[in-house]
Amino acid sequence: MQIAILVFDGLTALDAVGPSEVLCRLPGAELRYTGKERGPVQTETGPLRMFADHTLDEVTEPDILLVPGGMGSRPLLRDEEVLEWVRSVHERTRWTTSVCTGSLILAAAGLLDGVRATGHWLQMERLGSLGAVPTGERVVREGKIITAAGVSSGIDMALALVALEAGDAVAQAIQLSIEYDPQPPFDAGSPEKAPDQIVELVRERAAAREPAS
Amino acid sequence: MQIAILVFDGLTALDAVGPSEVLCRLPGAELRYTGKERGPVQTETGPLRMFADHTLDEVTEPDILLVPGGMGSRPLLRDEEVLEWVRSVHERTRWTTSVCTGSLILAAAGLLDGVRATGHWLQMERLGSLGAVPTGERVVREGKIITAAGVSSGIDMALALVALEAGDAVAQAIQLSIEYDPQPPFDAGSPEKAPDQIVELVRERAAAREPAS
Repeated sequence: MQIAILVFDGLTALDAVGPSEVLCRLPGAELRYTGKERGPVQTETGPLRMFADHTLDEVTEPDILLVPGGMGSRPLLRDEEVLEWVRSVHERTRWTTSVCTGSLILAAAGLLDGVRATGHWLQMERLGSLGAVPTGERVVREGKIITAAGVSSGIDMALALVALEAGDAVAQAIQLSIEYDPQPPFDAGSPEKAPDQIVELVRERAAAREPAS
Repeated sequence: MQIAILVFDGLTALDAVGPSEVLCRLPGAELRYTGKERGPVQTETGPLRMFADHTLDEVTEPDILLVPGGMGSRPLLRDEEVLEWVRSVHERTRWTTSVCTGSLILAAAGLLDGVRATGHWLQMERLGSLGAVPTGERVVREGKIITAAGVSSGIDMALALVALEAGDAVAQAIQLSIEYDPQPPFDAGSPEKAPDQIVELVRERAAAREPAS
């Protein structure tokens, strides 16, 4: 079971590492961190770097594709090399998945035209403008495409994916192995639950960071 | 606010990346991935590699120390260079923290003698044998030492830490930014909640992976 994880400068590390921590425990899984070039990529998560161990042309038939997000997803929306790779591998995947603004990349590749999908709550409008039918759900499965909401949601998505591939018991064993019994100190993890002024604060700061185009 | 994250071969990536995703958003935070040697480290998370950008002798007065776990923590329990560094930086930290079996390293360094602490549920007995007073709580704060349970708990711990350092609103804004509104598909994230046969399965597999000594 080959799992390709697209990595690029400016990805949000947890988008990739949350699902990785789950999927690396799937029996028979072979994770491939795949980028335009082999070598280190600079994540958006502080100074944290990750590695692309494989180039796009080396990973042509993954069983699962995982596309993370982050500010670095924005240039990829116009990167035909990456979009063509996404389209191409999607033809033969068992599952094509995204976390956070990774769904923008799937949409830009044309995979989400008229398809219900999710992504980071701040980017739902853009997701719709790229042809998808945005929904605020945390994990959305439409056929073999599974999209997840912002950043941390990739853990939930990956557990659901493991259950689909290997059954509930395997997913539960992995959940227990990573002791995923979340107890956030606040209930502010979605725009519906966070105080209004917090939502506005995060919205304003995010808008200031978006590229002009 | 300098935050030192100890990285080493065999660390569990999510132990470090979960808190990193939270702490990199703390205003004024400067994350320093610190290892015995500068360069790539091989995590326990599939083929995923991370980087040590700093060596131990370059990071002598971090405000926050974060020690992740993973099978790679075991050799460090007898690594006097690392243990002495942990003891030394702990003298001046504002917060000394661990995720998962990172608490074994804190204990081996002598920081947890008689101190209530937590860690991965499979390693509570060993945590006790190293002098700590193990508790099954997800996040345990004793003075300036904060220990967290297995792997995914570092996200909860880091949000609690941000609240202590910068207030509830900042922590809530970060929680919303990473859309941490967990919705695991199962309720199997702790040994109390998972089905008995799943607990036994995970226990047996983990025992088979432990080094003999």
